[in-house]
Amino acid sequence: MVIVGELINASRKAMGAAIEAQDKEAIQKIAKDQFEAGADYIDVNAGIFVGQEPEYLKWLVEIVQEVVDAPCCIDSPDPKAIETALAVHKGTAMLNSISLEKERYEALLPILSGTDLKVVALCMSDDGMPETADQRLAIADKLVNGLIKSNVKVENIYVDPLVQPVSTNVTFGVEFMKAIEGIMANFKGIHTMCGLSNISFGLPNRPFLNQTFMSMSISKGLDGAIINPLDKKMMANIIAAEAIAGKDNFCMNYLTAHREERFVF
Amino acid sequence: MVIVGELINASRKAMGAAIEAQDKEAIQKIAKDQFEAGADYIDVNAGIFVGQEPEYLKWLVEIVQEVVDAPCCIDSPDPKAIETALAVHKGTAMLNSISLEKERYEALLPILSGTDLKVVALCMSDDGMPETADQRLAIADKLVNGLIKSNVKVENIYVDPLVQPVSTNVTFGVEFMKAIEGIMANFKGIHTMCGLSNISFGLPNRPFLNQTFMSMSISKGLDGAIINPLDKKMMANIIAAEAIAGKDNFCMNYLTAHREERFVF
Repeated sequence: MVIVGELINASRKAMGAAIEAQDKEAIQKIAKDQFEAGADYIDVNAGIFVGQEPEYLKWLVEIVQEVVDAPCCIDSPDPKAIETALAVHKGTAMLNSISLEKERYEALLPILSGTDLKVVALCMSDDGMPETADQRLAIADKLVNGLIKSNVKVENIYVDPLVQPVSTNVTFGVEFMKAIEGIMANFKGIHTMCGLSNISFGLPNRPFLNQTFMSMSISKGLDGAIINPLDKKMMANIIAAEAIAGKDNFCMNYLTAHREERFVF
Repeated sequence: MVIVGELINASRKAMGAAIEAQDKEAIQKIAKDQFEAGADYIDVNAGIFVGQEPEYLKWLVEIVQEVVDAPCCIDSPDPKAIETALAVHKGTAMLNSISLEKERYEALLPILSGTDLKVVALCMSDDGMPETADQRLAIADKLVNGLIKSNVKVENIYVDPLVQPVSTNVTFGVEFMKAIEGIMANFKGIHTMCGLSNISFGLPNRPFLNQTFMSMSISKGLDGAIINPLDKKMMANIIAAEAIAGKDNFCMNYLTAHREERFVF
């Protein structure tokens, strides 16, 4: 499972303040903590700083990679901000995210075309958010084929079918999971990705519901997630679910996590 | 989800002693506790009492149904014990279990034929335990078709694909879950059932792994389980997984469980 650490995001109040105050030490600590907890990519988002997003995003990439030997997940729809950040990025970044919305699609495709960048591909179009698995698969189809045609390798694409709250419609969990299964079956070598906390919107015990949803989605083939890797229960859940899903040879990763007392229930 | 409460089983040391001592009160308490915790069937097993199984099983059915308004799951391969127990049973019992093993199959089929009894159908044959999904589906096919031919309604059949430990073979979880999916797809109206704790044999943190496995299996269609309903974490898991799986309209069951403070994490 590819884990993107979600904490360095300016839309989180404390983080927004830390970025604005240029509190390098605090942000670097969160980068290191996420990396040590198992993040493969460190998400960086400076979206709230209108007009200053490029410089803040560049600064975030620089200070994160000063202390952590991991690529960033550059979280912006703005081509100028992305390019400024990419110019200083070491290694192969992930872009978060392209979608089928015309403006976003046309802005990001030239940046991705022919590169080795990873990319999150959101199942969203100008017609709005899809509700059924079929609607998601139709968008994924156009999006993935468009990317491939522009020389993006299928194994660099992480499709996010977009989670919607099960409290709004009882079918929303199932339709999301069917989409995961369909995407993994339709495009050999592709990945899926999601920020899953929307599933529990409007319901009590959200972390618990999110964990359960994670296990269920892993059984359908989900192999990427944008989460808080400092959430030890969630991380334990992922490790256990991957062992059961046959993705952990000899349960080595599970046994190591247990030995290192990384399990919290 | 159909829940069979597993605790009144003579092979559990304390329960075996309670049955032998005819400690009616203690056993009735466990029956009531399981029922109140959400068990749909109360499993009764007196298998360790060779020669006395029929009378003990009959007694268990009587004392359980004295205090609990629920059917029993009669847990025996012995036709004489089953018939003695059925003679006093009120309502529609479940038999646990028939399999494709010749001796067991031929002994239980006449008891089931043309009745409304529910039955657990184990994916086991005289060739031993299946390892792959295909092997399980081949056994399920023969077993289910045999039962249907003998006038057992498909909706009364609970196929148990048999869980094997993921510590023995990394594919065992996946193959089990594929079998659940296949059985639910191949026979419209059928149910699946399992005692799932084998999945975690040989690994640390077994209850946690069992819960994760339960959520994952529910996402594949599992709709029955033989468990300890007094395990509040497991019950919380089932309720959450069913909400996500679209089986809980308006999340009513989930919200009720929360309000009644039945959730333990």
